[in-house]
Amino acid sequence: MNASTNESELDKLNTALEEGAFRQIRYTLNKTLRPSEVAHLIEKSPPKERRLLWSLIHKDIEADVLQELGDDVKSEILSKMNTSEVLAISEALETDDLADMMQQLPETVMHELLRSMDHQNRERLEKILSYPEDTAGGLMNTDTITIRPDITIEAALRYLRRHAELPDMTDSLFVVSRKDTYIGSLPLTRMLVSDPSSTVREMMVTDKPPIPADMEDTQVAKLFEQEDLVSAPVVDEEGQLLGRITIDDVVDVIREDADHSLMSMAGLDEDEDTFAPIMKTTRRRAVWLGINLITAFLASAVIGLFEETIGKVVALAVLMPIVASMGGIAGSQVLTLMIRGQALGHVERSNAGWLLNREMVVGALNGILWALVVAVIAIIWFQDLTIGIIIACAIIINLFAAALAGTMLPIVLKAWGIDPALAGSVLLTTITDVVGFFAFLGLATFFYS
Amino acid sequence: MNASTNESELDKLNTALEEGAFRQIRYTLNKTLRPSEVAHLIEKSPPKERRLLWSLIHKDIEADVLQELGDDVKSEILSKMNTSEVLAISEALETDDLADMMQQLPETVMHELLRSMDHQNRERLEKILSYPEDTAGGLMNTDTITIRPDITIEAALRYLRRHAELPDMTDSLFVVSRKDTYIGSLPLTRMLVSDPSSTVREMMVTDKPPIPADMEDTQVAKLFEQEDLVSAPVVDEEGQLLGRITIDDVVDVIREDADHSLMSMAGLDEDEDTFAPIMKTTRRRAVWLGINLITAFLASAVIGLFEETIGKVVALAVLMPIVASMGGIAGSQVLTLMIRGQALGHVERSNAGWLLNREMVVGALNGILWALVVAVIAIIWFQDLTIGIIIACAIIINLFAAALAGTMLPIVLKAWGIDPALAGSVLLTTITDVVGFFAFLGLATFFYS
Repeated sequence: MNASTNESELDKLNTALEEGAFRQIRYTLNKTLRPSEVAHLIEKSPPKERRLLWSLIHKDIEADVLQELGDDVKSEILSKMNTSEVLAISEALETDDLADMMQQLPETVMHELLRSMDHQNRERLEKILSYPEDTAGGLMNTDTITIRPDITIEAALRYLRRHAELPDMTDSLFVVSRKDTYIGSLPLTRMLVSDPSSTVREMMVTDKPPIPADMEDTQVAKLFEQEDLVSAPVVDEEGQLLGRITIDDVVDVIREDADHSLMSMAGLDEDEDTFAPIMKTTRRRAVWLGINLITAFLASAVIGLFEETIGKVVALAVLMPIVASMGGIAGSQVLTLMIRGQALGHVERSNAGWLLNREMVVGALNGILWALVVAVIAIIWFQDLTIGIIIACAIIINLFAAALAGTMLPIVLKAWGIDPALAGSVLLTTITDVVGFFAFLGLATFFYS
Repeated sequence: MNASTNESELDKLNTALEEGAFRQIRYTLNKTLRPSEVAHLIEKSPPKERRLLWSLIHKDIEADVLQELGDDVKSEILSKMNTSEVLAISEALETDDLADMMQQLPETVMHELLRSMDHQNRERLEKILSYPEDTAGGLMNTDTITIRPDITIEAALRYLRRHAELPDMTDSLFVVSRKDTYIGSLPLTRMLVSDPSSTVREMMVTDKPPIPADMEDTQVAKLFEQEDLVSAPVVDEEGQLLGRITIDDVVDVIREDADHSLMSMAGLDEDEDTFAPIMKTTRRRAVWLGINLITAFLASAVIGLFEETIGKVVALAVLMPIVASMGGIAGSQVLTLMIRGQALGHVERSNAGWLLNREMVVGALNGILWALVVAVIAIIWFQDLTIGIIIACAIIINLFAAALAGTMLPIVLKAWGIDPALAGSVLLTTITDVVGFFAFLGLATFFYS
């Protein structure tokens, strides 16, 4: 069974859903597909089919499916459960996934859940919950396997064999002191090629530093990417081992982080459910349209200043969107590049000067090139040399403004603690619209009056 | 040494660069920083500093640094090397990274490189090169550790101990037949808890299917994400083991895939170097501006049809950008959501109908809401009831068009084999501009004539 057969499996299921063949669907959901595939199927179904699918899933796999779902969909399903259903599911979850889920539960259900757990599990969970969700502490799991430095590799191998199974994604054992202080890691690959009589201390790796629990999750992701890690130890301020982060959770961070810029630039949330219900979608979208309407009215107000000039030369009304549009396009290219550069950690104060300089020159060169093209077309179209000169100047000015705004906005916004991906594009278009219309109509007023 | 000290390490290096303290820089580059950190430093430096940094790196770590660099930067550096330098570096690379590098070399250097390799390495490399870069075959490495099913776990452990070290990211041994046909996997974590006298066949895992070499890389990434894999076997059509894919290479695919939508929507390439030189940047950007200029002129042509009406009612010129802008914003929200939905595999023919339906209703609701708001403002501003009615109708029509275009464009473009992220936003703005101006000015011509 490879991925392409899976696809047709899903197709079959879709057909069955349409035909109402519930027994067949139940069989496929619970016996043929893996939990990740069931979750994917739920995510790509509209709300009604979604509820139907969820009701057909067997209790035993509910927890597995739930933790594979996106946050938006997960909280929608959780919100429809009663406390005892939530409790039943919580028992089957790993600690970090449980902590994730808790953050989406109502306060009362959360407390009931904590009360129902045994002492050790509650302690573990509370440890994770004490860190914000977007830090190493919130990302970690507590299922570490620890050993002491003074035992031999042979003893360590015997110790492992006493386990029925090792946690998923265990690629290293963590070496700790008597007081649980992190000392080093012993990769399984290294353990397996070691002389059994050598000690853990001799074979362990100490050049990869442990991750502090308060490190931001995007920083953790960068570290995993740079160092090609599969798992990494998490420590508190005293260097005590708290847990470990595994690459599967980091991949989610990377995916969300990358999605964040794309979605934010369109005023969407990165957790946005593709099949969110109509009213929820309408409300979220309305906010963004409202914000953009303010900037649109600002642009209109600028045009309004020059009503008289437009009344005299109507060709100005015909050509003015070109000036604004060229500025908007050029600016959003710079903005996107800067936002990605910030996410990758390429853009910082020390090289901002170089970037601004480059973008100004690029803006000037492209400004001159396209100003000439547009001028020629405008002159031929309206048989008017003046309008060609005016639009050429306006385009050059606006591409300069676009380069300046596109480069500086992300830097300034970030310094102010505002997300450039969210606020950047609105502010940028406001600037390029206002500058574009003002330059074009202002110059026209000067030339034609 | 944790990540925050690293940051200050980089800061110090920046200061040293400015002061020209080359000996200190050379020491930091070659002794203190890891290759991934050196690569990061190079990537976030402007071209001049970049060449300087590269020249200060010791030959021994050149290969390690090079393979951590982005494609754009990598090929810039490779293009400045002569054949013997390329040969020296190629010897230190892993096969999959070497294959990556080869694709950026001139034909002649590539052939010389192939000639210089020993038989076994050349065969391996040619195997990888025979698959497109964006397939499982192009992504795989050939450093698998294979065992036979009929030996005991104890024998397998002895076999491993004969290795000086195991390849990075080895989390499973692959079980193959006498003819190298893939049979199953033996996770190290499972091997370590097994009874040494049991056989590999008894302990191996067979429920995770191997990856066909021609599977697309984005599909591979989805499989890794859904199944939480660290490494996976790659097989040819006959089921013969060809190599393995590891999560570190998959993370690159995920990052690039997610970046792709963001960058394409601004007409940028996902490999785009943040610090590309001026002329290269100018040329790439000029193309995108040129394409957008055509759509801007189309919008202008529509306005041009109604010059007479605008001459009579100049307020139309003041308000018309609002209609176009609201359509553009609403449409790009839908477009972004659809493009992300396609990337996640949520959007397909079977649920397109539901999405179109939802978006049309959302468009209608938001259309009515904002049409009323804009109408009231326009009526008060221009003391003209007619203009309020006209702009309200135009906004509702344009938000409908935006919902329709935003939903259907990605589906139609994808079916035609055109990248929706690249072509979608240009086409969408063309539609919302043309429809917006036409509806607004057309209605005005009707009402005011």
